[in-house]
Amino acid sequence: MTTVARHRVAVVGATGAVGSTILEVLAERDFPASEVVPLASARSAGKRVPFDGSDLEVVELSDESIGGFDVALMSAGGSVSSEWAPKLRDAGAIVVDNTSFFRMHEDVPLVIPEVNPDAAAGHSGIIANPNCSTMQMVVALAPLHAAVGIDRLVVSTYQSVSGTGQKAIQELKDQSAAVLAGDQIAEPKVYPHQIAFNVIPQVETFNEGDDYTTEERKMMAETRKIMGLGEEVGISATCARVPVFNGHSESVNLQTSEDLSPEQAREILSNAPGVVVVDAPGEGLYPLAVDGAGRDEVLVGRIRRDPSAERTLNLWIVGDNLRKGAATNTVQIAELLAQRGLLDA
Amino acid sequence: MTTVARHRVAVVGATGAVGSTILEVLAERDFPASEVVPLASARSAGKRVPFDGSDLEVVELSDESIGGFDVALMSAGGSVSSEWAPKLRDAGAIVVDNTSFFRMHEDVPLVIPEVNPDAAAGHSGIIANPNCSTMQMVVALAPLHAAVGIDRLVVSTYQSVSGTGQKAIQELKDQSAAVLAGDQIAEPKVYPHQIAFNVIPQVETFNEGDDYTTEERKMMAETRKIMGLGEEVGISATCARVPVFNGHSESVNLQTSEDLSPEQAREILSNAPGVVVVDAPGEGLYPLAVDGAGRDEVLVGRIRRDPSAERTLNLWIVGDNLRKGAATNTVQIAELLAQRGLLDA
Repeated sequence: MTTVARHRVAVVGATGAVGSTILEVLAERDFPASEVVPLASARSAGKRVPFDGSDLEVVELSDESIGGFDVALMSAGGSVSSEWAPKLRDAGAIVVDNTSFFRMHEDVPLVIPEVNPDAAAGHSGIIANPNCSTMQMVVALAPLHAAVGIDRLVVSTYQSVSGTGQKAIQELKDQSAAVLAGDQIAEPKVYPHQIAFNVIPQVETFNEGDDYTTEERKMMAETRKIMGLGEEVGISATCARVPVFNGHSESVNLQTSEDLSPEQAREILSNAPGVVVVDAPGEGLYPLAVDGAGRDEVLVGRIRRDPSAERTLNLWIVGDNLRKGAATNTVQIAELLAQRGLLDA
Repeated sequence: MTTVARHRVAVVGATGAVGSTILEVLAERDFPASEVVPLASARSAGKRVPFDGSDLEVVELSDESIGGFDVALMSAGGSVSSEWAPKLRDAGAIVVDNTSFFRMHEDVPLVIPEVNPDAAAGHSGIIANPNCSTMQMVVALAPLHAAVGIDRLVVSTYQSVSGTGQKAIQELKDQSAAVLAGDQIAEPKVYPHQIAFNVIPQVETFNEGDDYTTEERKMMAETRKIMGLGEEVGISATCARVPVFNGHSESVNLQTSEDLSPEQAREILSNAPGVVVVDAPGEGLYPLAVDGAGRDEVLVGRIRRDPSAERTLNLWIVGDNLRKGAATNTVQIAELLAQRGLLDA
């Protein structure tokens, strides 16, 4: 009989869109936890959050509450992570951080378990979870890169609002209701412009003088770091927000190093972990945001040759940005650490 | 004193989304009409449609009603055009057809007045109005092509529902209301899948065995025909429908023959007819679908170098698919014919 080691787990930002999904995924996947403690700001302390058919009381994130964890799953924003990830690490936890704060730090591995699991071992107490748009794209492209190499990729995204959080979901609901009722919409608070029945070609922010958003820069830099692509591989990203509650869609134009037919790409992706090929367009079968939402796999379809360039395919990729794009991958990293004995004191 | 020649105008499909916009644009632009007659199917005959502050009675499209027109503006679907465009032509009208039926016919010019006005003179009684997605892209790209040449373009679209017609607008409204109310949506009738709060990577249809939709093929073929691009220029299109009522957005990746800086592109486009540059992203200024709707100009922004390839820019293009993408261009072609004396008997 094998005894499964059980671990004490902190979920930081447990009341948010991603944090609550982390709790859901931990229960669903039966993570070997001895205890799960939801942590959040003082404002949320004392609230109850659902967990595994019951609920848990939210505890204030403080110097007093951070001791004794084997692993901390953080998703409470970059400024919370910048302050509390080092503290949680120093208090003994391995931190899996879902914010962008540490992702490009040299001593912080950026991990997708299906793609670069071995990178996790190189951590110094903090492991970063990739950006949601990057995640789903890399899950689909890494197997193709392993097979034939990638020369260049151009991606345009169709991103849902849930990645921005609960307030963005509410803003899309409120604005949509107002437009349908023929009312003036309220001044947007979460996004810089109306999101209901509109497309906003800005995801995250433009730093001063920048012509690419932080989200576009994340997609370009994180893809390179996770897949270990050198500067000779070109990456171009355009990120847009669309009025969808959950599930990001991506139009990807991929030039490979060796020729790859659509049939070969489908074959490779059909056997790739975490990927489901949905590609019978004549029968109306292709990835849809509403179908991707709620699933842990990345859906890939519309795989076809681009007639405008050699060795180039077009693909349509959909993923649940809260699950695989955030919560599921975070829990998968924790599972990987547990399986490899890296959470044992 | 100059006497302006006045022309008798038929608007075929006058009760549809595009037809009613044609009537609006004819009045707005003060087209030199002696009479405007709205024609439609027997089902709509006798209805009143708004025109120039008053209204007009819809007349049934029939062998009896098609005589005596100088120009016929058609937007009632491909099958109506295939039957009635030749009849209207034979009855003496020059036909400007907004459907896809004649667009790729060799003896039918495909005209955007800002881009290839001289092509109109080569007509044999029928002139075609380009597809909406193609139109707005070509208005923006033709001035850049004239300046430095185009080697390759990769476009991903974010298309609104109004191009599909009034029923699609209603379907988006009904489904959106159902989702907001937490109700099950009714079986989709216009689109193959739910469009509310979703993205559908299929615009128009897949012919048997096709991996590109008819819309994607139109964008690739029509762009080539209007701009006179040879096979050495590569074009790749991915078309997706988004839950937006009106206004198509497009993410365009453009490789030019000679290097073009973003500043030079902005300068050229600022002076191009029918184009407005909206490009101060740090101040939240870029083209938005809701801002493009209701305007005749094409909006271009997010102009920046693509770091993944030489001589390559990314651009974001928005246009009102009912106006410049359909009605306005149709009326502009009629104006061009009038100005050149081509409508005079």
